[in-house]
Amino acid sequence: MEEKYFVCTGCQKRYPPDRIFPRCDDCFEPLEVEIFQEKINKKNHPKTTVDIHDNNILSKYASYYSFTHLDKELSLKEGNTPLIQANSLPSLLDIDNIYLKNETVNPTWSFKDRGTLSSIQHAKNSGYNYIGTVSSGNMAVSVAAYGARANIKTFVLVSADIPEEKIKPVLIYNPVLIKVEGNYGKLYFESLKIGRETGIYFLNSDVPFRVEGSKSIAFELCEQFNYDVPDYVIIPTSSGGNARGIIKGFLEFYQSGIIDNLPRFVCVQLEGCAPIYQAWIDRIDRISPVVKPKAIDNAIANPYPPSGNELLRKLRKYDGIVTAVSDKEALAAQKMLAREGIFAQPAAAVSISAIQKLRIKGIISKTDKCVAIITGSGLKYPGILDYHRFDIRTCTLENMKENIVSILKK
Amino acid sequence: MEEKYFVCTGCQKRYPPDRIFPRCDDCFEPLEVEIFQEKINKKNHPKTTVDIHDNNILSKYASYYSFTHLDKELSLKEGNTPLIQANSLPSLLDIDNIYLKNETVNPTWSFKDRGTLSSIQHAKNSGYNYIGTVSSGNMAVSVAAYGARANIKTFVLVSADIPEEKIKPVLIYNPVLIKVEGNYGKLYFESLKIGRETGIYFLNSDVPFRVEGSKSIAFELCEQFNYDVPDYVIIPTSSGGNARGIIKGFLEFYQSGIIDNLPRFVCVQLEGCAPIYQAWIDRIDRISPVVKPKAIDNAIANPYPPSGNELLRKLRKYDGIVTAVSDKEALAAQKMLAREGIFAQPAAAVSISAIQKLRIKGIISKTDKCVAIITGSGLKYPGILDYHRFDIRTCTLENMKENIVSILKK
Repeated sequence: MEEKYFVCTGCQKRYPPDRIFPRCDDCFEPLEVEIFQEKINKKNHPKTTVDIHDNNILSKYASYYSFTHLDKELSLKEGNTPLIQANSLPSLLDIDNIYLKNETVNPTWSFKDRGTLSSIQHAKNSGYNYIGTVSSGNMAVSVAAYGARANIKTFVLVSADIPEEKIKPVLIYNPVLIKVEGNYGKLYFESLKIGRETGIYFLNSDVPFRVEGSKSIAFELCEQFNYDVPDYVIIPTSSGGNARGIIKGFLEFYQSGIIDNLPRFVCVQLEGCAPIYQAWIDRIDRISPVVKPKAIDNAIANPYPPSGNELLRKLRKYDGIVTAVSDKEALAAQKMLAREGIFAQPAAAVSISAIQKLRIKGIISKTDKCVAIITGSGLKYPGILDYHRFDIRTCTLENMKENIVSILKK
Repeated sequence: MEEKYFVCTGCQKRYPPDRIFPRCDDCFEPLEVEIFQEKINKKNHPKTTVDIHDNNILSKYASYYSFTHLDKELSLKEGNTPLIQANSLPSLLDIDNIYLKNETVNPTWSFKDRGTLSSIQHAKNSGYNYIGTVSSGNMAVSVAAYGARANIKTFVLVSADIPEEKIKPVLIYNPVLIKVEGNYGKLYFESLKIGRETGIYFLNSDVPFRVEGSKSIAFELCEQFNYDVPDYVIIPTSSGGNARGIIKGFLEFYQSGIIDNLPRFVCVQLEGCAPIYQAWIDRIDRISPVVKPKAIDNAIANPYPPSGNELLRKLRKYDGIVTAVSDKEALAAQKMLAREGIFAQPAAAVSISAIQKLRIKGIISKTDKCVAIITGSGLKYPGILDYHRFDIRTCTLENMKENIVSILKK
């Protein structure tokens, strides 16, 4: 596969394939890898089965990736996640067909692994000996895990006020973890600068190759629907990189003639930290940072999403939607998803709240096929369980039968 | 597929397909589904690719299951888990090829989902309207999740002294959860009795159809190795049901002529609760309950494993091995696995400790191909992270570069 140029998502300025800095020198908007467009003989392509000896997103979809070399030992066989048809949600939400793309069964139990694999591969192909990330959530875990597997020195920069219980699941993978005192928003920009100066490839949320990894969610969905694309794809949106990747993946299959139309994309944020939604309803082009974010799950509470402006552009261009839901709605959706057998983190459950909201508004109709991207496992955030009220019964061994019988009679 | 008889693993007494009680009336040993043996045309069978529209273990391996009917909506697309070749373990343990069967990416993040699916299918096919389990760990989570998905009233019986933090990840799926005061060992037997009387199908660790579900691990391994079976399969062993299933799966493929030989099976326990290991080294036929179990991870600390005697029989018959490792070794193995990118619970990491031990003893040789079954995710047991010492650095935004540069120079 030939190497591709980067294009600025804001001003379309082009950059050569050896570019590492992920943002435009002129307008500072994020870069992306040029779109892949291959005229495809639909009958022969792509595969609808997964070779279990080679279930790696980068090799499976090689014609949509620009890697000149793949190190197969980097992969933990991420992706290839199940699409689950919901059993009980349809009647609850009054929609005939709801599908759950279960990203909680990735190697570190979130969608981040896809983008980590592709950006670590790019780091290696570009000759980098060190990687890093600014995150204390799913991305930190994912980068630490893949860095360990690749045996690459891995820097994880976190805010100084992060509690230890949040970073221990990162530390188990043995990264260099540094708590940084000072403005957390600045830390992201500082990491890019220091990365340039010290030769550390920072795999942050908006690097082009992280977005490339997320494309594979779209590719898999197309296959799983037998190329009959769903009406709506609903994406929990924090920094915006995953949504960008999913949209790009559908666009590439569309422009290649593999699918005949695009789904309608819905980005969902939490009301307590919804900078993209705010700009969307204000009909402005640029997001403003949220000064005091107050949302129940950090995994969906980036106060100044690096891909925010680009998402506004793409969603406006392709008739997308941005919406926001409350913490309470997210918690309710978490319980609804558990009825399907999936324990998702609230950041992931918001996709269900969004479907409910858009259905009530009449935007989504009863017969629309909807896919919710379930981005990460509820086990990532066990503290959330304290927000729920549960019913626990007690009895003795002696009166157990009596108790059970009385419950059965109800 | 025709329905199969059950056979007592102890005395070989046969029971008709409509039998539900999972143990023999005469010798009280666990029953199992009769062995499947089909003479197979190797070239045509089995598939080596997974149809992503139908990645369900029961339909994929239908000729090795006795279900007359499958309800596809019960499945969360469990199984089909990756086999990962270890990168750094080979040099650490002085073994050329070590593979990790990563069961942590199942729908509820442990191997239990395979057996839950097949036993819930059996419960439905047998006309049951209620299911239950006695567990507070991986099995409780799995049964609660699948029960919710199937919209079947689900009873989870736990010991009265279980802390709430352990049961909340079960409660999110909304089962009927009952804390039972009294002897926990008796609770298992009591559940079978009450199940019989009240029409609740208890999917405990040793029900024949839970064992049937675990067979699919063996089937997948055969495929993933292209039918060239590995030398050793190492299985963390608590109640023994998973090990029984894996062994049965290999036996069925062997007796069908799909594979030419069996691997050597190694069952691993934790020293603080090792009833099967104790009987093994004492060369006796029946396990004795451990009076005061003291092991770091409950998931591998069944003091009186219901499938213990049967495992002793099978491992003796097929030249298997039972070993035990210490809590300290399990914790060390947890860190080694994290270097591969997999955060496993200690109960799963013991398989790595066992490989290390058997290699040092010279039983496993450098060129032996070893597979460790990584049974469950480390996120199941976040408290375990407190046992590890981690290195955390701190700095300010201003002196961050200086700090990073000094680390890079080391």
